Amino acid sequence: MRFATIRTSAGTTAARLDGDTLVPLDSPDVGELLASGGLTSAPATVGAAPVPAAGADFAQVTTHPSKVICVGLNYRTHIIETGRELPEYPTLFAKFAETLMGPNDDLVIPAVSERVDWEAELGVVIGTAVHRAGTAEAAAAIAGYTITNDVSMRDFQRRTLQWDAGKIFEHTTPAGPYLVTPDEVGDATDLEIGCSVDGETKQLARTSDLLFKPADIVAYVSQAITLNPGDLLLTGTTGGVGDARKPPEYLKPGQVVRTWIEGLGECVNHCVAEPPA
Amino acid sequence: MRFATIRTSAGTTAARLDGDTLVPLDSPDVGELLASGGLTSAPATVGAAPVPAAGADFAQVTTHPSKVICVGLNYRTHIIETGRELPEYPTLFAKFAETLMGPNDDLVIPAVSERVDWEAELGVVIGTAVHRAGTAEAAAAIAGYTITNDVSMRDFQRRTLQWDAGKIFEHTTPAGPYLVTPDEVGDATDLEIGCSVDGETKQLARTSDLLFKPADIVAYVSQAITLNPGDLLLTGTTGGVGDARKPPEYLKPGQVVRTWIEGLGECVNHCVAEPPA
Repeated sequence: MRFATIRTSAGTTAARLDGDTLVPLDSPDVGELLASGGLTSAPATVGAAPVPAAGADFAQVTTHPSKVICVGLNYRTHIIETGRELPEYPTLFAKFAETLMGPNDDLVIPAVSERVDWEAELGVVIGTAVHRAGTAEAAAAIAGYTITNDVSMRDFQRRTLQWDAGKIFEHTTPAGPYLVTPDEVGDATDLEIGCSVDGETKQLARTSDLLFKPADIVAYVSQAITLNPGDLLLTGTTGGVGDARKPPEYLKPGQVVRTWIEGLGECVNHCVAEPPA
Repeated sequence: MRFATIRTSAGTTAARLDGDTLVPLDSPDVGELLASGGLTSAPATVGAAPVPAAGADFAQVTTHPSKVICVGLNYRTHIIETGRELPEYPTLFAKFAETLMGPNDDLVIPAVSERVDWEAELGVVIGTAVHRAGTAEAAAAIAGYTITNDVSMRDFQRRTLQWDAGKIFEHTTPAGPYLVTPDEVGDATDLEIGCSVDGETKQLARTSDLLFKPADIVAYVSQAITLNPGDLLLTGTTGGVGDARKPPEYLKPGQVVRTWIEGLGECVNHCVAEPPA
């Protein structure tokens, strides 16, 4: 099954994809749907007409996660090619709910950054609260998968030893369009993932190359803090980011970033200049 | 003026300190009080008796901040003594709302960490939404100050290049007891700050040694993301943490950690073992 959070004239609503249409559900977003009883718990909203998926205005799939936690350095081939040793533990960093944006929203290039970069990532949405979990319990806590792009302001990221300053810019991380349930995804650890800019493929990998699998990451984070329904984990990116290219490439207004994962769909974000203050 | 969030049989409530008593206000916590109109906007709760401050059960001063953002390496003397150069930008990392705990709550030593350490820090509570602020606007957005202890799991913190894994443990960062307004604090950049364990002073400094002042930090973070009423910033710690001692010292069940800031009061946390799962 596929679930989305869409914007309507009455605010956001969770919706279930039935064929080509989205059926509004009685919950304001997919995160709340998960928190209030699970994906199949909410009835269709009485009186709300189905929305054609093709014309829907998708919000980030989870709008108010208590936590957005990301992993760096997680594609085995990419770690090796950069000369690093394979790490024993996931490298964690953080985003906030306000950092997320809809899967087709314009990506406003912040006026304060000169180095806006892409990072296609498999997103993991938590379905049930999980603390100090082993791998099996962690796997069972995953509600589904989505597409994310950990858009990063490399200048802010690299000013100090800690990356977060370049990772938390508001409304810069596309997340969506759908939460796709594990049964429909099939093997989440063997999906093609890619990112293109203006039609030119910049990143291409398979999630089989992930060093720490989704359940490993959920289990590790849960050692520190309870993951809640609607929380979002980003699982890291492969090679091909702009900052590592020679010469480096950064996103500019007018460009189009496309992020895709096999079976999950795509995020398409037009880069636009920030309006004057 | 001083405001607190206290626990009552009906949940948490914001309260204003009048003399020796806390007057419950019609808002569930100080963060919500700030978000819904400001510290002086809410009336006293009709029918709620004042609570003696001495016997109050203090919650973290802001219970649901959208963001908790911390600064590392910010005491000038300490940076220099560790052989580092003074940084040009604040080093930012993140916590989450669930990481906070009340100023007198027991500090449960996580069973998964062998290296639980203290970090006394001046906390800054945001009063009004602020984005891309200069220093003056940033200063005006500060609702007040509080005491925090950025309790850190050094083993998790140091497993990778990014510190967040050791900084986000749930219910481990005391924050309180009061938000003290700037007019009552006086000069927030010239206060004694300290931390003791079992009565032995481990850290002692003055906030005059802060490289990036509270308004500088608010202004910098606001370049990336809007800070909202109730958001909490931790401004960094000075030398004397356990991990840097020879031999290293870490918190153990049975110890008492006291964190104080001149004019703001103190947090007193008894360390206890985590109950078996």
